[in-house]
Amino acid sequence: MENNKKPLILISNDDGVTAKGINELIKYLRPLGEIVVMAPDSARSGSGCALTVNYPVHYRLIRQEPSLRVYACTGTPADCIKLARNTVVERQPDLVIGGINHGDNSGTNVHYSGTMGIAIEGCLNGIPSIGFSLCDHAPDAEFRYCEKYITEITRMVLEKGLPDRVCLNVNFPNIDQIKGVKVCEQAVGRWEREWQPCPRHHDDRYFWLSGEFVNYEPGNNKTDNWALANGYVAVTPTLVDLTAYHFMEELNTRLSSDL
Amino acid sequence: MENNKKPLILISNDDGVTAKGINELIKYLRPLGEIVVMAPDSARSGSGCALTVNYPVHYRLIRQEPSLRVYACTGTPADCIKLARNTVVERQPDLVIGGINHGDNSGTNVHYSGTMGIAIEGCLNGIPSIGFSLCDHAPDAEFRYCEKYITEITRMVLEKGLPDRVCLNVNFPNIDQIKGVKVCEQAVGRWEREWQPCPRHHDDRYFWLSGEFVNYEPGNNKTDNWALANGYVAVTPTLVDLTAYHFMEELNTRLSSDL
Repeated sequence: MENNKKPLILISNDDGVTAKGINELIKYLRPLGEIVVMAPDSARSGSGCALTVNYPVHYRLIRQEPSLRVYACTGTPADCIKLARNTVVERQPDLVIGGINHGDNSGTNVHYSGTMGIAIEGCLNGIPSIGFSLCDHAPDAEFRYCEKYITEITRMVLEKGLPDRVCLNVNFPNIDQIKGVKVCEQAVGRWEREWQPCPRHHDDRYFWLSGEFVNYEPGNNKTDNWALANGYVAVTPTLVDLTAYHFMEELNTRLSSDL
Repeated sequence: MENNKKPLILISNDDGVTAKGINELIKYLRPLGEIVVMAPDSARSGSGCALTVNYPVHYRLIRQEPSLRVYACTGTPADCIKLARNTVVERQPDLVIGGINHGDNSGTNVHYSGTMGIAIEGCLNGIPSIGFSLCDHAPDAEFRYCEKYITEITRMVLEKGLPDRVCLNVNFPNIDQIKGVKVCEQAVGRWEREWQPCPRHHDDRYFWLSGEFVNYEPGNNKTDNWALANGYVAVTPTLVDLTAYHFMEELNTRLSSDL
C-alpha cells in the first residue's frame, strides 16, 4: 500500500448488506483503514463464485461517513467485488474481505460459500483476501468474541500479505471461550439428507435444500471441522489454483495410450 | 460399477436442458451406459457451485426412452446433481458429467463455471466426474469434432476411475482440425474490462457483465489457455481440496507470534 494513504479495504458478504455480520465487521475494521462496502441488497447464501450474466447489475450508495462508503448491489457476492473494483474504488484495494458470514464455511462448504466467493474473487485479482464466518445461522448471532481475532488476522495480512493465489478461510466456533487459533486443512466429508420434501398441492417433486455435513475423518485434528468442534478458530489457507499436479503424469500416460 | 448393469451416467449443464451442447452430449454417451439427465430449465451460465437456498427446487420428467430419462429442474447446475442423486437415480452414479458447455471454462473460469460446478459436486461425493466445454458461445455451435475425444475420455474414466478428490476440466478449441490432447495446468490470468455500462433513464449505475480473459503467461505451453490457443484439447485435472498446504507452516508461524 502507498505510504501516505490509509489501507483501502473492500468488504462484501452473502447475507445481504443489512445483515448483522457485515455491520459488525465494518465496526471492527474501521480503525484499520478506509472502508468500501459493496454487498448484495438481499440474502445470497450458497452463491459460491456465481456471477450474474443474464441481466444487468445495479448498485446504489446507501451510507456515507468519513472513510466509509456502503453500496447495495443487485448482484451476487462475486459480482459485488468485480463491480466495486471497476466503479466505486479509485485504486486497487489493499484487502478484500467477505463476511462475517452467519454460518459455517469450513470443509467442502468452501465451494458453495458466497463469503469465500468474495475472497476467491479478490485473490484471483492479486489482492490479499479473507473470508470470515461464524458457526451460527441466527440473524442475531453473537459476533463479539470474534473481534480480536478478526482485527489481528486482518492486521497481519495487511502487513505481510499472502502468497500468490492463496486466500484465507477463517471460521469461528459459536462459543464465548475460544481456545485459540489453528491453521487447518479442509475437512473431508459429505453432505447427507440434503433435501427436505415440501409438496405443493399434489406435486411431491418440490424440495428445500437442507441436510447436514458429515465429517468423514472426525478424529483428524488437522481439519477445520475438528478445530471448530474443539473450540478453536479454524484458519484454512485456500488455493485458487485448482490444478491437480499430482495426477498430471498418470493422466498423461493414460491419454497417450488411449487417444 | 456392478458387473451386470450398464454404467449409470448422470448428466447436467448450465446452458439449460434444451441447449444444443447437452443434447449432443446425450447422443455421444448413450452407447456407453444408462443416461439420466437433470438440467436447469433455462440458462444458468456463471453459476459456479451455487445452490438454491431461499426457495424450493422442483423437477419434472420431460423425455423418456430406453436407458434415457431427461428431467428439467428449476435449480442451479449443482442443485441438479444433488437433487438427482437423492431422488430420480436408484443407485450411486458411475459418472457425473457436465456439458457440453457453450463457451470456454479454462483458466480461472473454472471458479465461475456451472459446468465445472457439476463436476465438482460429483467429485465431492466420490463419483468420477468430468466437465466438457467448447470455446464457442453460439447457440448453434458445432460440437461434432469433440465427439471422438468425449467418447474416449469418458470411456477411460469409466474404466480406470479418477484419484480421490480429482475431477477433469476438458475444454475444446473451436476448430475442425484438432491437433490432439494435452494434460494442462490452470492458466494464470485475469479478466479485464469486465463491465459494459447499460444506463437506464438517467441512472448510469447499470452494468452488463462482459470483459475478456487475459492470459498472464501467454508463452507458458503447460497451460490450458495455451493448449486451446494452439489447437489442442485441454484436459486440466482439477482438485476439490483447496487447502494451500505449502503455506501452512509459515501461516502457523505468523499466527503463533501474532495471537
